[in-house]
Amino acid sequence: MKNNTKKAIIALSGGMDSCVSTAIAKLEYDELYAFHANYGQRTLKRELQAFNDIADYFDIKEKLIVNFTHLTQIGGSSLTDKNIEVSKADFSNKRSLSRLGGIPSSYVPFRNANILSACVSWAEVVNAEAIFIGAVHEDSSGYPDCRPEFYKAFEKVIDIGTKPSTKIKIITPVIYLSKDEIVKKGIELDAPLHLTWSCYKNEDVACGVCDSCALRLRAFQKAGIEDPIEYKEKPDYLLQE
Amino acid sequence: MKNNTKKAIIALSGGMDSCVSTAIAKLEYDELYAFHANYGQRTLKRELQAFNDIADYFDIKEKLIVNFTHLTQIGGSSLTDKNIEVSKADFSNKRSLSRLGGIPSSYVPFRNANILSACVSWAEVVNAEAIFIGAVHEDSSGYPDCRPEFYKAFEKVIDIGTKPSTKIKIITPVIYLSKDEIVKKGIELDAPLHLTWSCYKNEDVACGVCDSCALRLRAFQKAGIEDPIEYKEKPDYLLQE
Repeated sequence: MKNNTKKAIIALSGGMDSCVSTAIAKLEYDELYAFHANYGQRTLKRELQAFNDIADYFDIKEKLIVNFTHLTQIGGSSLTDKNIEVSKADFSNKRSLSRLGGIPSSYVPFRNANILSACVSWAEVVNAEAIFIGAVHEDSSGYPDCRPEFYKAFEKVIDIGTKPSTKIKIITPVIYLSKDEIVKKGIELDAPLHLTWSCYKNEDVACGVCDSCALRLRAFQKAGIEDPIEYKEKPDYLLQE
Repeated sequence: MKNNTKKAIIALSGGMDSCVSTAIAKLEYDELYAFHANYGQRTLKRELQAFNDIADYFDIKEKLIVNFTHLTQIGGSSLTDKNIEVSKADFSNKRSLSRLGGIPSSYVPFRNANILSACVSWAEVVNAEAIFIGAVHEDSSGYPDCRPEFYKAFEKVIDIGTKPSTKIKIITPVIYLSKDEIVKKGIELDAPLHLTWSCYKNEDVACGVCDSCALRLRAFQKAGIEDPIEYKEKPDYLLQE
């Protein structure tokens, strides 16, 4: 191994945003290390399959799959607690997606900090100089741990909380992109969007109506590109627009 | 449950520092939630026993035990990687404890951020307003994730990365105390120091010579109090002083 091998960790959920982020990371880094978290989400198995498929596509150096069972035990999200319903998207409402006190019910409390912390531990040991994460700061997502300020503050924690010789950047390459720009960027970089999984609800055929499917379908529609995956149903507004 | 029930999470490893921190938390909070992480440390079983004993002693409201298997897989520390030796303390050296590039070989990369992130997820769901962690900023420890600045920076990440209604403080009640002051504080508050476990190496009888045993033994000696637990051997300097 050369000493100047540039290494990066990629937090790869198996969705579109992290898939396109991987394609971007690949442009600049020699070796990618892919991190995936199972946290008891409803579509855990399907997301893991997407993770593996995408990691293989990009010829990832090493994979690390982590079971965050505590996030399942803790609950508090429609993704991890079966008693909280996965809501259907409603773009007719100005505040668009379903919220629980202003935050979508799919928000998994502080999930991204749990993911980043594990990625930093790994990065410090394998000497990776960057962590890529596909967070998107779109009004419509509304997750507090997807905001640019969050990653800036976390970088400071890394700087203080690791060895003096450790220097790790957090790179959020799609954070300011809209979902349709992410689709276009993916097409441009030959990212395997057909291997990604976005649905919050189903594992066989994407439901088409949960917040995540709805955002994805709308993004492909706006980008003027056909979504390569299959859907159980497509929401009315897609046909109207 | 009253609405004004004051709840706190305590990160309880089973060592002296977290035990005394629990006793301090108990003074101000009505309900304590105890968090414990197995991260593949050599003395995992013994620490878990100490955690359970201390939690029972303090009549903890809820316990959450988490398996951070990724920290074992990642390694990079003498506590989690059997190929890295647990070093013996050498107080004759000015820089006192055994270091790996200035940082003790027992440093588990970014461990405390992993622990805090999980505690924040839990705190957000159970509405706890504080997280207690028994970090000690003694020159002799040398862990970057035990510094006061680290916790200050992490508090900012919590503030940004959780729901707007969530307010969680990090409280490090023993961070500026020396180890002998922690012993004295524990005695003052009736903390069950006899139930704690500090040894990095053994699970039956504490070795007495690893960094952690050495710091503990020296602390009791300085405090002029007999350590209630048994040791396999005691280092020479203890007899000399």
